[in-house]
Amino acid sequence: MRQRNKPWADVFLQNNSHIVIQNPRDNKGKWKNLFNNDNPIHVEIGTGKGQFITGMAKQFPDVNFVGIELAKSIIVSAAQKVITHEQDNILLINENASDLLEIFTDNEISVIYLNFSDPWPKNRHEKRRLTYHIFLELYRRVLKSSGELIMKTDNRGLFEYSLVSFSNFGMKLDEVNLNLHQAEDPTNVMTEYEQKFSEKGQVIYRCRTRFNKN
Amino acid sequence: MRQRNKPWADVFLQNNSHIVIQNPRDNKGKWKNLFNNDNPIHVEIGTGKGQFITGMAKQFPDVNFVGIELAKSIIVSAAQKVITHEQDNILLINENASDLLEIFTDNEISVIYLNFSDPWPKNRHEKRRLTYHIFLELYRRVLKSSGELIMKTDNRGLFEYSLVSFSNFGMKLDEVNLNLHQAEDPTNVMTEYEQKFSEKGQVIYRCRTRFNKN
Repeated sequence: MRQRNKPWADVFLQNNSHIVIQNPRDNKGKWKNLFNNDNPIHVEIGTGKGQFITGMAKQFPDVNFVGIELAKSIIVSAAQKVITHEQDNILLINENASDLLEIFTDNEISVIYLNFSDPWPKNRHEKRRLTYHIFLELYRRVLKSSGELIMKTDNRGLFEYSLVSFSNFGMKLDEVNLNLHQAEDPTNVMTEYEQKFSEKGQVIYRCRTRFNKN
Repeated sequence: MRQRNKPWADVFLQNNSHIVIQNPRDNKGKWKNLFNNDNPIHVEIGTGKGQFITGMAKQFPDVNFVGIELAKSIIVSAAQKVITHEQDNILLINENASDLLEIFTDNEISVIYLNFSDPWPKNRHEKRRLTYHIFLELYRRVLKSSGELIMKTDNRGLFEYSLVSFSNFGMKLDEVNLNLHQAEDPTNVMTEYEQKFSEKGQVIYRCRTRFNKN
């Protein structure tokens, strides 16, 4: 996502440290304490401006959502949405997905969402794709054995690559949808990208996958 | 494929029994003898009118192709194409795919092609889909351990179903292509359906998969 310079972002994030957790590594293995309940934890990697996670948190009040977003100038928008929606089942983290094991302990997460991740189309950037096997190993570790990785994208190349990457990693496909918006699905919460692209008639892909943790 | 009544089909097939093998069960485990060489054997299930298999046989003279087609009135057209093309690396069989184990022995085949198979979209017809797990078990048996199952279709529902079915069966995806004709691929041989549908701008899906035979 394109980033605009927002000099006030640091101040804003500090003032809203109850939403954007300042030292997330301190909560490794203890995220349920911050939520004050035992509800399952779902993590969105690349939360962007927060439309998906706030929509999901509203639809599933008995789930705790954690949004990870690397770009400070963007996570600010997500935090503003959380404040507006007045939902207490969302926390945000301004971190890199590659540090996932420092933030969550093994089996702490029930679902991971990858929504419209950067496709990194050049072969030499394969390692940066969030479905590269090094990332899959992180997800496998922090997900429960019954946990799911759910991916949505409009990028055909990334989706093709990811299906093969999941397969090579020994993951199981529970669902593949090659045109999510062809049929109306009232439970599907759209991201900003998804809304924009599907309004243009672009195909949206989704898959639900599981790790083999036995 | 829609079948027209062709009363002369029986006579034609008998007169061309060097192409349309009359008692294919007698050749189980001995198909290389009919081809008079040790070249790998590729099998197309649902050969239709034979455009794919004749095109492939021309492009790969060192591969032996066997086309299976249940409809007598249609396999006649495939046989006519084989005669016209004067290729000696194609044989045809007028049989049902469900009888595969009676026709081929274990590990006899290197590649199986499923091209534009009937999607059988209704749930109650799932068992008829050629990627239902009962069929996958047949393919696993007759394919060599290094063998591939290569599928092409324009039917989104069948492709989505098949990817999940392959995954549940423990197969590996080597390649997924969600728009085969977006880029020109001079090695791709089109079926009759594929040509018609892609000319209409319809998306063609392809995947290459392997069984776990160890």
